[in-house]
Amino acid sequence: MKINTTKLAKDFITENVKDGDIVVDATMGRGNDTLLLKTLTKSGFVYAFDIQKDAISSTKDLLIKNNLYENVSLILEGHQNMDKYIDKPISCVVFNLGYLPKADHNIATTPQTTILAIEKALNLLKQKGIISLCIYQGGDTGFEEKEKVLDYLKKLDYNKYTVIISEFLNRPNFPPIHVKIIKEI
Amino acid sequence: MKINTTKLAKDFITENVKDGDIVVDATMGRGNDTLLLKTLTKSGFVYAFDIQKDAISSTKDLLIKNNLYENVSLILEGHQNMDKYIDKPISCVVFNLGYLPKADHNIATTPQTTILAIEKALNLLKQKGIISLCIYQGGDTGFEEKEKVLDYLKKLDYNKYTVIISEFLNRPNFPPIHVKIIKEI
Repeated sequence: MKINTTKLAKDFITENVKDGDIVVDATMGRGNDTLLLKTLTKSGFVYAFDIQKDAISSTKDLLIKNNLYENVSLILEGHQNMDKYIDKPISCVVFNLGYLPKADHNIATTPQTTILAIEKALNLLKQKGIISLCIYQGGDTGFEEKEKVLDYLKKLDYNKYTVIISEFLNRPNFPPIHVKIIKEI
Repeated sequence: MKINTTKLAKDFITENVKDGDIVVDATMGRGNDTLLLKTLTKSGFVYAFDIQKDAISSTKDLLIKNNLYENVSLILEGHQNMDKYIDKPISCVVFNLGYLPKADHNIATTPQTTILAIEKALNLLKQKGIISLCIYQGGDTGFEEKEKVLDYLKKLDYNKYTVIISEFLNRPNFPPIHVKIIKEI
């Protein structure tokens, strides 16, 4: 089994999220990250956002199937509005950009709302809190979201935030890239 | 304490090198990686290479001080000739490119010998063996070695090798980059 971007994200999240943490899945999708976060936070709390009803019902089913549908809030709302729902410091925010798998590829995250959501997430994070970001490129997705998000991240104050980007250098078809963000102060 | 390239390398090496492994420090320098590899391989064996006598004596002193000067061979030789000394499959090769700290900055690794050494290392690695590569850029070092090494790595067959490059996106002064290579077959 070869390592991929999903594994990079999973490892980073698993190393950093602990029992009791309050965390956010900013792109619920089919609920895989929500499930991972629920498994790690246990007595903590997971807020999960998506703008598609289909995502909410898939994720709810997945959590119920795994007996983990508690201490979680599945919210039908754009992630750029996460601050309306969360009022305490959080440990981790997970973004998995792009479109909902097995749904309309025209409904996808956009650079503007994604950057706004990252900004909100950075403000809500506690010290040493993290953001895990998977950014797709090429194909239906194009390169605009990747370029705009990376341009934004490049300008973050390095005293406040560490940003590490990881890419698969020799794989074809523009594999997704992974970004780790750590709030330092 | 903020994460840096050295920590990325150390984590990757520590996750992958086990008791009994045969491994290589391709750029001995002041012996920090040789010491780390000795600590991890225990009953295994570490081959360490450098072209400067100064590096050999620093590293020998460091290992003796830590009571770890056994199952190790400190070899005064360019790393591009590692295959003359090693005749069995190895688990890990560590490269920390650039010049020897606290010595003549004009004596440094060069793209040509570095690429030859990586080629030898890839051949010597066993399946799921790894290479950890820290590449410096800017300052005395310039960008030539980075560019030539990355050009070489980009062309590696992705069926045989996974190459992941990690960079600090928002830090000033061209921080070193880290490359993880995994031999897949």
